[in-house]
Amino acid sequence: MSPERFRVTFQPEGRSVSVLSGTKLLDAAARAGIFINAPCGGEGTCGKCRVEIEGFASAPTEAERRHLNKQQIEDGLRLACQLTVDRDMVVSVPEATRFSEQVVLAEGKGREFALRPNVRKRFVQLDPPSVEDLRSDASRLTEALAEETDEPRIGLGLVRQLPSFLRQEAFKVTAVLLGDEVVCLEKGDTADSLWGVAFDVGTTTVVGTLVNLATGERDAVASRTNPQVGFGEDVVSRISYGTAHHDGLDELHRCITGCLNDIVVELTESAGVSLDRVYEATAVGNTTMAHLLLGIDPSHIARAPYVSAFGGALDVVAASVGLEINHNANLHVLPNIAGFVGSDTVGVILASGMMHGEEVRLAIDIGTNGEIVIGNRDRLIACSCAAGPAFEGARIRYGMRAAEGAISKVVVNEGIEVSVIGGGRARGLCGSGLLDAVAGLLSAGLIDGSGRIVSADALGGDIPGTLRQAVVSLDGQPAVVLVDARASELAEAIVLTQRDVRELQLAKAAIAAGIQVVSGEFGLEPDRIPHVLLAGGFGNFIRRSSAKRIGLLPGIPVGRIEFIGNAASVGAIMALGSRQCREEAETIGERTEYVELANRPDFLAHFTEAMMFPQDP
Amino acid sequence: MSPERFRVTFQPEGRSVSVLSGTKLLDAAARAGIFINAPCGGEGTCGKCRVEIEGFASAPTEAERRHLNKQQIEDGLRLACQLTVDRDMVVSVPEATRFSEQVVLAEGKGREFALRPNVRKRFVQLDPPSVEDLRSDASRLTEALAEETDEPRIGLGLVRQLPSFLRQEAFKVTAVLLGDEVVCLEKGDTADSLWGVAFDVGTTTVVGTLVNLATGERDAVASRTNPQVGFGEDVVSRISYGTAHHDGLDELHRCITGCLNDIVVELTESAGVSLDRVYEATAVGNTTMAHLLLGIDPSHIARAPYVSAFGGALDVVAASVGLEINHNANLHVLPNIAGFVGSDTVGVILASGMMHGEEVRLAIDIGTNGEIVIGNRDRLIACSCAAGPAFEGARIRYGMRAAEGAISKVVVNEGIEVSVIGGGRARGLCGSGLLDAVAGLLSAGLIDGSGRIVSADALGGDIPGTLRQAVVSLDGQPAVVLVDARASELAEAIVLTQRDVRELQLAKAAIAAGIQVVSGEFGLEPDRIPHVLLAGGFGNFIRRSSAKRIGLLPGIPVGRIEFIGNAASVGAIMALGSRQCREEAETIGERTEYVELANRPDFLAHFTEAMMFPQDP
Repeated sequence: MSPERFRVTFQPEGRSVSVLSGTKLLDAAARAGIFINAPCGGEGTCGKCRVEIEGFASAPTEAERRHLNKQQIEDGLRLACQLTVDRDMVVSVPEATRFSEQVVLAEGKGREFALRPNVRKRFVQLDPPSVEDLRSDASRLTEALAEETDEPRIGLGLVRQLPSFLRQEAFKVTAVLLGDEVVCLEKGDTADSLWGVAFDVGTTTVVGTLVNLATGERDAVASRTNPQVGFGEDVVSRISYGTAHHDGLDELHRCITGCLNDIVVELTESAGVSLDRVYEATAVGNTTMAHLLLGIDPSHIARAPYVSAFGGALDVVAASVGLEINHNANLHVLPNIAGFVGSDTVGVILASGMMHGEEVRLAIDIGTNGEIVIGNRDRLIACSCAAGPAFEGARIRYGMRAAEGAISKVVVNEGIEVSVIGGGRARGLCGSGLLDAVAGLLSAGLIDGSGRIVSADALGGDIPGTLRQAVVSLDGQPAVVLVDARASELAEAIVLTQRDVRELQLAKAAIAAGIQVVSGEFGLEPDRIPHVLLAGGFGNFIRRSSAKRIGLLPGIPVGRIEFIGNAASVGAIMALGSRQCREEAETIGERTEYVELANRPDFLAHFTEAMMFPQDP
Repeated sequence: MSPERFRVTFQPEGRSVSVLSGTKLLDAAARAGIFINAPCGGEGTCGKCRVEIEGFASAPTEAERRHLNKQQIEDGLRLACQLTVDRDMVVSVPEATRFSEQVVLAEGKGREFALRPNVRKRFVQLDPPSVEDLRSDASRLTEALAEETDEPRIGLGLVRQLPSFLRQEAFKVTAVLLGDEVVCLEKGDTADSLWGVAFDVGTTTVVGTLVNLATGERDAVASRTNPQVGFGEDVVSRISYGTAHHDGLDELHRCITGCLNDIVVELTESAGVSLDRVYEATAVGNTTMAHLLLGIDPSHIARAPYVSAFGGALDVVAASVGLEINHNANLHVLPNIAGFVGSDTVGVILASGMMHGEEVRLAIDIGTNGEIVIGNRDRLIACSCAAGPAFEGARIRYGMRAAEGAISKVVVNEGIEVSVIGGGRARGLCGSGLLDAVAGLLSAGLIDGSGRIVSADALGGDIPGTLRQAVVSLDGQPAVVLVDARASELAEAIVLTQRDVRELQLAKAAIAAGIQVVSGEFGLEPDRIPHVLLAGGFGNFIRRSSAKRIGLLPGIPVGRIEFIGNAASVGAIMALGSRQCREEAETIGERTEYVELANRPDFLAHFTEAMMFPQDP
């Protein structure tokens, strides 16, 4: 019998998800794509994850009573990490509770960023020429923009339009500036209509955020699966495709720009903004994604000694790479650090502010690869772990991405209970479900410390019967049935195989060893690092207890782990909203040292050691 | 009987011209397009115009004996301002004698310009990437170019080519830099193959100079009639054409870029240089020409209050305006000063160096318009005189440009003798011939001080019979036959009409009044100006005695007049060869004050006064 499910609707978005009874609101919100800030990691100690419940709710926990007064509780205020779903619910998530870069930054050293975007607008009312004032049209305009920039430039395209446009509009126009260049003029005063879009181009998922650059508000967020997945799950297989096929590079390039265009259309339509009013885009992504977005051959990233074509930030006319926003818009691609540490990591560092404080932080962005960076204002060291795509469900027998039908949560008690994204029948297992399954089976004794699935006849007598029956034999090796054939969408059982466990071991060992190497390079044992930041879509869905159980973050106390959401995206937003942040990103790209793990003798030692699972605490 | 003519051949060009017996070698050389430096104005006092004669020559003058020793004279060395043509001659013109910007500048305050062009090349041998050196391809390249520029930039187009090109060439390539940007890479070491072209885009004539930017040598010069003359002789009629016709602006634009392309083909073919090796072009021209070259609507230059679309220098991708040189080449158009004072005047100022010294200079560039600028390092003041195209032969009954068949020189003694360009029969009268004719007839008493041609019956008894017979009546007004019908190519007499004299009076009065106004504004009477520089094609062909006779340069002693050749072109060449000169040009454009003569009450007074011809001295 499958456990009861309820529908939770989050306001003001009106987005709803179906979750297992007993799921924490915090997790349900994440499932709905609404990120709630919970610096304490959902332990009930910080009291920050306040949400508002409509109608009746269960009695408050002790933690809630500590952080909320009686009146607040009567008014429906609750902590998302405490309240569990026990019926259909409608929940309002206040802005202050949400995960935003302001919150991220506030969690750092009080770092803030002032809205001062690279793209600006200014409405000017110019004196028409007269015999006493014979300045050229261009000088007349640029002198009126002296407050915006010291040396405003005007390109030929605009100079050609100047004479007729200025006179047609009686010399009252709005100038659009990109950096020091006036790129276009608009009729009347449109200074308040100024948008930009920030992209996080992941190997698997592409996220776009529409930012009102006149106010700093984020007006819309949209995401798409990177359609390049059709050419390979990971960057290396895409590079191979691009190299092996005639026009393959071009195909991959058009594929991703098409995706970005789809996202922009969704963003602008949902916000009621014209495409013409989007004047700049920023993008972060791993180095290969950035190359493909710009139509640059990434093949040498995949060949020893693994170097990229470019390192520093690049600015290109957005239209020249096929991005359909304002015709004069700029696309700014943030700098990368190395062939396998891209601008997405620069974005994470920028968002976290870790390059400013004295306090050392470790940031981990787990996607298809795992990028790890440690440091503070004095030094930053990064590495990339070839974790493989196991966390994204690839190379796992029944693996899939975290989409509808994926088992995203597994609880092992008397039996095995699963939670499926979308609430229907299970179609496969995504990364967080894989982590949960292995962690749960480890604790239950169905997997031993070496990662071996214990065969049914070798199981100890204390194993409950339901669990014992889940262990089957597949291709001559033991395996564990997570969902039986009757409850599965596939008409066959969904099984965790021995090989799946090995894949997870390889992935987590790579991450764990990477942490050991960069920490060692920095001269600080992992257990002495005061802040560990988990970034990325995957990082935000995993349960810290499961991560700890499998030894993903060796020696790091659970209480020091903070989820910082899609920090790469936040970095792209910051570079969009602030020229200073853009310059900081450039500095991060130049300053961050890169450690090539393949060249490190200590990496293999750590890796081998980390293949084992830790003892149950 | 027409006077005897001889052929003079100039070496090493091998260019030859046919001139009247008695013509000074200095004038013959100018006719052949070979400009000899004669700072004293051909008075025989400076001794700089040394040329070498092959074979027998007439006895040296006293001036030659002062400047040359016996041995030199025996070796064939002579002064071009002293030796007159009395037979067919072959003359070598040493480099030191030629008019070049070095000479122009040396004549100033010892100003020199070091060859340091905006476009540079550098052959680099990069270390291939290794596990110890994982810099991106772009960083590897830009770091190797650190000596050339502090912050080298690489555009997307080149980044796309980098990975394959660098490896194909084993990381040994030549980088082409335009300003701070690496625009392309070439195979092997091509650092010595670096050319640029400097254009002077005149309303009537377009001149291009091919400059070897590795050595600073000028490899070729070519000129063409501006094909836009088909759309109107002067800028205003071309602007009208552009405004009145659909696609008129575009037609004018394509017309001039086509002309520039023809010139470039001629230049590169004659120098044996590939078009691909021409990486930058600079251009000067009057403001309207610069607008049309760039495809910018110039119509507001022709409407009160007469303002241009742009003032400062513009840089555009040469290919984007249709200029067919290296695909990545830049076109730099120098700044203009006002609607009717263009970058050609900036070029003249730059070439003369007048903005550097303490000594005041007055520069006059006579073309279809006359631009006048006075000043020194402290202040520069410019104006434009609507002289009209009389000096270019337009609006003159038998007027024509200084082309084959044009009467370019007129001597009035017992009768009227003419010199025709190319040596054939006369087809018309060009500017310098017009000036000569009026000056000669003034001195002979056939034209009075008010500009009236004296009718045959009113002529004094001292006028020789041949001259007396030249005065005829045309349309009820007196006129003077310069060439009779038998000697003319037209099968009709070539006549100077009363109206022609009036046109010349208007033109010279405009120039003379302009000189008075800018001198007055500067606070210096014309006769106190130590240096007067005559620039432009026309300026170099006129005889100073004729210019003085008609009062073109009021109060200015002939000895202070220097011909500085096509100084506008020299300015374009300097901006091509030196970034510092380019910056100086920008400063000149910003600093030079513009006086609008139409707004000056004193202009009309000077103009009216200057309409009269001065008394014969």
